[in-house]
Amino acid sequence: MKNKILYTLFALAFSYTHQAIATPLMIEQQGSFAVGGIVKTSDGNYNPRPDMTKENTNNRFMDVFNANIQNGGQTLHGDHATVSYQIPTNAKALPLVFLHGAGQSMRSWQTTPDGREGWNNLFLRKNYAVYLVDQPRRGWSGRSTVDSVISATPDDQFWFAQFRMGEYPKFFDGVAFPKDAASLNQFFRQMTPNTGPFDEGVISDSLKALFDRIGNGILITHSQGGSVGWLTAIKAPEKVKAIVAIEPGNFPFPEGEVPDTIESAFGDITPNQVNKMDFNKLTHIPIIIYFGDNISDRPSNIQGEDQWRIRLALAKQWADIVNKHGGDVQVIHLPEVGIKGNTHFIMQDLNNDKVAAHLSNWLKVKELNK
Amino acid sequence: MKNKILYTLFALAFSYTHQAIATPLMIEQQGSFAVGGIVKTSDGNYNPRPDMTKENTNNRFMDVFNANIQNGGQTLHGDHATVSYQIPTNAKALPLVFLHGAGQSMRSWQTTPDGREGWNNLFLRKNYAVYLVDQPRRGWSGRSTVDSVISATPDDQFWFAQFRMGEYPKFFDGVAFPKDAASLNQFFRQMTPNTGPFDEGVISDSLKALFDRIGNGILITHSQGGSVGWLTAIKAPEKVKAIVAIEPGNFPFPEGEVPDTIESAFGDITPNQVNKMDFNKLTHIPIIIYFGDNISDRPSNIQGEDQWRIRLALAKQWADIVNKHGGDVQVIHLPEVGIKGNTHFIMQDLNNDKVAAHLSNWLKVKELNK
Repeated sequence: MKNKILYTLFALAFSYTHQAIATPLMIEQQGSFAVGGIVKTSDGNYNPRPDMTKENTNNRFMDVFNANIQNGGQTLHGDHATVSYQIPTNAKALPLVFLHGAGQSMRSWQTTPDGREGWNNLFLRKNYAVYLVDQPRRGWSGRSTVDSVISATPDDQFWFAQFRMGEYPKFFDGVAFPKDAASLNQFFRQMTPNTGPFDEGVISDSLKALFDRIGNGILITHSQGGSVGWLTAIKAPEKVKAIVAIEPGNFPFPEGEVPDTIESAFGDITPNQVNKMDFNKLTHIPIIIYFGDNISDRPSNIQGEDQWRIRLALAKQWADIVNKHGGDVQVIHLPEVGIKGNTHFIMQDLNNDKVAAHLSNWLKVKELNK
Repeated sequence: MKNKILYTLFALAFSYTHQAIATPLMIEQQGSFAVGGIVKTSDGNYNPRPDMTKENTNNRFMDVFNANIQNGGQTLHGDHATVSYQIPTNAKALPLVFLHGAGQSMRSWQTTPDGREGWNNLFLRKNYAVYLVDQPRRGWSGRSTVDSVISATPDDQFWFAQFRMGEYPKFFDGVAFPKDAASLNQFFRQMTPNTGPFDEGVISDSLKALFDRIGNGILITHSQGGSVGWLTAIKAPEKVKAIVAIEPGNFPFPEGEVPDTIESAFGDITPNQVNKMDFNKLTHIPIIIYFGDNISDRPSNIQGEDQWRIRLALAKQWADIVNKHGGDVQVIHLPEVGIKGNTHFIMQDLNNDKVAAHLSNWLKVKELNK
């Protein structure tokens, strides 16, 4: 018995530095489901036994399919979100709902490019139930109600710059991202395209439906998902108890207090606007916004430095206005709290556990960790 | 202590009939990764600081993106598979690798449409490590190296017929599928489109790369994935130790022994052909093939009954030929072993635990469960 306790203590101590022998996850329930979406119906009458006498090519399967389509009377279930969830034993009351950014899927929150545990696992280990979302028209939620063309145009280097890894092929000095070829290969292969037009209204509708299903929770967004997150909290103000936004792309300002467009040689940012009633909903919940490293404080000719300069500046303006109206927004520029080198993918960087610990502490301070 | 043992026994007994209080899953490791795929490179030279003097519209972000694309010199990482894995404590030596069928993703193996546990959970509970695959150009593996058009044409009713639920809106009598509207809604929303041309060569290459990474394993395929499975075992004959095929679409016959096309009013089936050396690789591993219920033994004017009539017939012919050459193939037509009502989605049907138990027993008989 004494040996067993000693062994357990040793294992716990060792697991701090060596993830491979981390203690097992105890999962009470896990699975996936679709939520939200609409049904599109074609005109006509479905005929399960179409008359094929006029058509009889070498591929009758496609003839039958096409005859079915032409007869109409069929449905398409699309524009839903798909959700993968895990509920650990002794789960806290409020689950975490994770929404990815542009070009990404729920894989953003899973294993890191170099094989470490992502925030999915890290927060399960902190006893939070975790809901990962593939937004409508992305990843598992590929069925769109609107046609789409997918272009196979090489653009990895553009995203390497935009996601603030450096200027390809050079990484920023001291970047908290694994620089080996295998990790970068894994990172690029996380990208997955839109299968229909990107639509914040459609996506936030599906997230509202998710909160209607699971009840109160904390929404964690990344990048382009940030704007969807603000909309979701406006649509489900009783259910979204807090928002954590990792480098969000834009912010909803109240009418009459919308700041000017901020210019960048790589693309300006024009602030979003909402009506005052909707804006006020965002003053009733705690919000924390994280930005990483290598963000310039003056115009820069490096894409990543400049693109996040304008967004960090806008984040600070937005926080001031929300807080002036009685809200509770904190903007954490990580280098200022001693966490260095972060790219745009803070939840995957080499120090993703440090940022998770910072967030965990904030959740505790805000009493969201019961 | 005595109370605790009594409680545990009670909980175990109760969990047979009530999944909600099933014992927790003990997961030693879980995550996701990409595997296989190629890199496509555009001509030209990547310029991270493109000269934008000539272009300066109201959307410089897209200007910069387009200038980047036009300059070229960029890469696209595509055509990989994406894999989600869970390794339970005390895992058996051989993991299970699951490949979905047409229009599906790894969700096929997760929660059932009515919220019960899918084969993912059921086999984790039997201590198998589980690897779920999204094949190249589907779901999380959306990045294709070839352009594609996605049509949002309603076709649910065609698939309802093809997947042998019945003739829409009527289910087959005694079908082992939940008939409530919410379940059918969930089922339709599992569909997700190809984001590039379907290509068995590309997909089986990625699966070979997966087995190269994880080592020996057992491949479980569904429907259209069946043909990919045979190709994978031919490409990685030392690693694929057994194949379980749920209603596969086609079969690779050895040259000189290819049977005639089998006709169906809803689409014929022309058997696949491989060379003798490749065929022989399939005679060295145990193979089990499952077919469900409502498959006619003579031509039928009901799509589902007739489409699987021809495939079940071909499966039996293939099994005979493989076995004649020294192989070990069993075709299990489930109604003949007393398991009734199965649709094409055997692993999600109301009796999915019964079929899982049958498969589990086969794995034991073949000594694949160590």
